Amino acid sequence: MLTFTLSAGTRLDLMSEQPASAPRASNPPVSTPAASDLPAGIAAALKRDSAGLVAAVVQQFDTNEVLMLGWMDDEALQRTLSTGRVTFYSRSRQEYWRKGDTSGHVQWVKSVALDCDGDALLVRVDQVGAACHTGTRTCFDGRELDAVTGSSS
Amino acid sequence: MLTFTLSAGTRLDLMSEQPASAPRASNPPVSTPAASDLPAGIAAALKRDSAGLVAAVVQQFDTNEVLMLGWMDDEALQRTLSTGRVTFYSRSRQEYWRKGDTSGHVQWVKSVALDCDGDALLVRVDQVGAACHTGTRTCFDGRELDAVTGSSS
Repeated sequence: MLTFTLSAGTRLDLMSEQPASAPRASNPPVSTPAASDLPAGIAAALKRDSAGLVAAVVQQFDTNEVLMLGWMDDEALQRTLSTGRVTFYSRSRQEYWRKGDTSGHVQWVKSVALDCDGDALLVRVDQVGAACHTGTRTCFDGRELDAVTGSSS
Repeated sequence: MLTFTLSAGTRLDLMSEQPASAPRASNPPVSTPAASDLPAGIAAALKRDSAGLVAAVVQQFDTNEVLMLGWMDDEALQRTLSTGRVTFYSRSRQEYWRKGDTSGHVQWVKSVALDCDGDALLVRVDQVGAACHTGTRTCFDGRELDAVTGSSS
């Protein structure tokens, strides 16, 4: 069983998942790329984009809500598979980020599946609080586009 | 109300979404890139990758199952928003494909939302038959990876 404890130095900021500007002893930096221990069979199945990433759809395990979409390279996936917590790779900041380290909005891993093409992951989690850095439960809430709907009859 | 009718020339192939090798009069080619009529406000909000694409998560509207992940450029999104049917852009084939044209496994659009970052779409649909070209209901079925699970206690 894994436990998650907020250390005294953890910054609680509901509006941001930006990591602190300097590494802190209480929260080891997760931004350093590292050789990945991802099992060879999984690594061989991944179909990465030109930046070495696959898309990771994050879904609440009991309600099936789609919470957000993030990106993972081999190392982020290995950390996600082996630690019980979801780690992404930030395309904009070019560094690893473990969901909830700054916001407290942890994603506890329930299962991970790789799709038929190898370019998308479905990560089912138990989401603590809001998944979105804007404070909404999901990153899609209240962001509907006008669309013509269709049906079979 | 939109209706979907299989034309006489439509190839029903449950194992493939590959388009026919040559355009047919009964099924206008959808592979020709075109200037998009996507509303300017939406186009301005999209954060496209280096290939001009955003990720599109497709979810069954009534069960919340995550069915698959595809890719859309501006034109594919505009077609999806305006026709009641989901159109993707294939990264591997570099052409548009309208889900179900070859398999019959149509996706009827129920709603479309753009996430907080502008780099992911959530397309809620009514999926006819299997979403996956391999014949499974979703592209993630039976494809779980070994993962350590986590919990808050």
